[in-house]
Amino acid sequence: MPKQLPEDSVGIVEPQWFRHEQPLTLQCGKTLPRYELVYETYGQLNADRSNAVLVCHALSGHHHAAGYHSANDSKPGWWDTAIGPGKAIDTDRFFVVSLNNLGGCHGSTGPKTTNPDTGKLYGPDFPIVTVKDWVISQKALMDHLGIPQWAAVVGGSLGGMQAMQWTIDFPECVRNAVIVAAAPKLSAQNIAFNEIARKAILSDPDFHGGHFYEKGVYPKTGLILARMLGHITYLSDAAMREKFGRELRDGSISFDFDVEFQVESYLNYQGEVFSKNFDANTYLLMTRALDYFDPAEEYNHDLSEALRRARANFMIMSFTTDWRFSPERSEEIVTALLAAKKNVSYADIDCPQGHDSFLLDVPRYINMFKAYMGAIDI
Amino acid sequence: MPKQLPEDSVGIVEPQWFRHEQPLTLQCGKTLPRYELVYETYGQLNADRSNAVLVCHALSGHHHAAGYHSANDSKPGWWDTAIGPGKAIDTDRFFVVSLNNLGGCHGSTGPKTTNPDTGKLYGPDFPIVTVKDWVISQKALMDHLGIPQWAAVVGGSLGGMQAMQWTIDFPECVRNAVIVAAAPKLSAQNIAFNEIARKAILSDPDFHGGHFYEKGVYPKTGLILARMLGHITYLSDAAMREKFGRELRDGSISFDFDVEFQVESYLNYQGEVFSKNFDANTYLLMTRALDYFDPAEEYNHDLSEALRRARANFMIMSFTTDWRFSPERSEEIVTALLAAKKNVSYADIDCPQGHDSFLLDVPRYINMFKAYMGAIDI
Repeated sequence: MPKQLPEDSVGIVEPQWFRHEQPLTLQCGKTLPRYELVYETYGQLNADRSNAVLVCHALSGHHHAAGYHSANDSKPGWWDTAIGPGKAIDTDRFFVVSLNNLGGCHGSTGPKTTNPDTGKLYGPDFPIVTVKDWVISQKALMDHLGIPQWAAVVGGSLGGMQAMQWTIDFPECVRNAVIVAAAPKLSAQNIAFNEIARKAILSDPDFHGGHFYEKGVYPKTGLILARMLGHITYLSDAAMREKFGRELRDGSISFDFDVEFQVESYLNYQGEVFSKNFDANTYLLMTRALDYFDPAEEYNHDLSEALRRARANFMIMSFTTDWRFSPERSEEIVTALLAAKKNVSYADIDCPQGHDSFLLDVPRYINMFKAYMGAIDI
Repeated sequence: MPKQLPEDSVGIVEPQWFRHEQPLTLQCGKTLPRYELVYETYGQLNADRSNAVLVCHALSGHHHAAGYHSANDSKPGWWDTAIGPGKAIDTDRFFVVSLNNLGGCHGSTGPKTTNPDTGKLYGPDFPIVTVKDWVISQKALMDHLGIPQWAAVVGGSLGGMQAMQWTIDFPECVRNAVIVAAAPKLSAQNIAFNEIARKAILSDPDFHGGHFYEKGVYPKTGLILARMLGHITYLSDAAMREKFGRELRDGSISFDFDVEFQVESYLNYQGEVFSKNFDANTYLLMTRALDYFDPAEEYNHDLSEALRRARANFMIMSFTTDWRFSPERSEEIVTALLAAKKNVSYADIDCPQGHDSFLLDVPRYINMFKAYMGAIDI
């Protein structure tokens, strides 16, 4: 018998597909002749079409943000803590749209899609996509769904960057932007971590220059290394200490190079699971989209100048122990918004879990999020 | 014509070798039938043999800490900022001993040494060595040199850990310990970074289970990844921003996965240089020595109990922007020393360069170091 789903779940959901049959010229100069986006929706679009919320995903996210695909699913969507009836993004009030970005590996057009020009998978030939490209493709989905304006665009980490870009590139289309655990652009340290992750993938002999599909292999080791490294940056030092300490897996030192401490075992396991479910070419694309994100670049490197165009109200949230995108990075966004005379709320949430907090049920964070969303007129 | 050496240099130095012909049983239970240590000395041992200072090296260090091997050397030893006539470790007063640790790859017995049992290089069969083992081998060198007691044992990072272990295992032999940018043991995050570095090396196809010497190759990619990752943790986020910002190598975005930002270029280059000069099996050993370091372990996990045995005076120094071994970790050592009623000085040096500061000419650090060393009676 299938289990009872939680009462505050959006329940069983089904992915849908949006087919864009016109060409899209990307920021890199290359053109996709057509593309598809896979997405899910939760809640109902109201008669005024004024209650739509766009959820943007982070590096390894996808369209399945809430609910279950079947009653037997062990886990709900990745942001189920925040999306559902009575939750922060209340599906009794809002119509929520969540998609897999272009270049992704969960159903939208990306490296695992057949290139219509060649009849083969795109693989490494899939063009570099940027946050700006994503926003344009999300706008096409918005038009397809007949939504004139988002009540809010929301996201954490790379998802928050998309929300910020929306307010600059389509100011009339966004009434509110909720930007969690993000940054106005990557630091040199952030880029360096991404470079090591990419190098681990690119140098894996099973990567085959990105053409690994036809060989029946995938760059497992490279992906595991990339994910392990990412994982360290998602957790705070304190959270790792709390979770693992220096516990030995087998109770005593074995004096070798096998996996020995709990933390090694955990990261290896998580990396292995990830490597089976994520495409290496997509990982490369997503990290480059992060590196290249810099909305101020076309405004004389002045973020407040870029944000002056925005018409949205802003809610910025950060976490005290996030060292990937620290509170100082969120404060840079807040400072630029204030200089641009925008309406901005900011909360730095005191919690120990680091960058990952944006995905977790941190009461103060969820309550602030809920209060902000609850005050949005629809 | 050879260049003029700086006046405050120890000048041209020559490595020496100490041969220990008796077996050494290591903490892991394995026995080395004999071993050699390569070392250098700077300054003169006084008639009382009371002015000797032991310098312990960190992860990738070696015996060549000061001076030049030839007048044409482009760079002096790794701690030349701190060792020389009139410097913090003043060679006009002190007789300085600096060695390459057991398991190293710069001349001491290690993976690149011939195993007398097999007639082949040890390679991956070289036993795991620990900080305790190093201290025992350093004690043998001390006896060989006829030094009854060190005026000071000094080191940064993993070198500081050796200084701490000396005060516990040979309390009568150490009058002062200078422990810079160290920690009482690694955190889960520290161990996780080491695990990723090891995994990168172990999974490199050119590693060949550690038997790469006979194949005429070496795990270049794995070593580069390991070093790049280490390098990130040696620098502060602010130092990387200062040094690289988000500068592009060629001025404009190329939209590909080639090395594009200055920081990527720098880390790749440094990693490549390192991979040519450092042995992969030694890298594995050194990171495990770090993971296993835990002097409190045999004293009911009570560091102050361990340090109660010490007879030395202590100088502990940390750097505000060091996130590899943060000031909080140095403060744990200070707290344990105070609880053990030891004589301890502590300075947290405000400087932007992160963990690497211990190798740099940071005036306040060098001045504090010099003041402490200058007050030591010889």
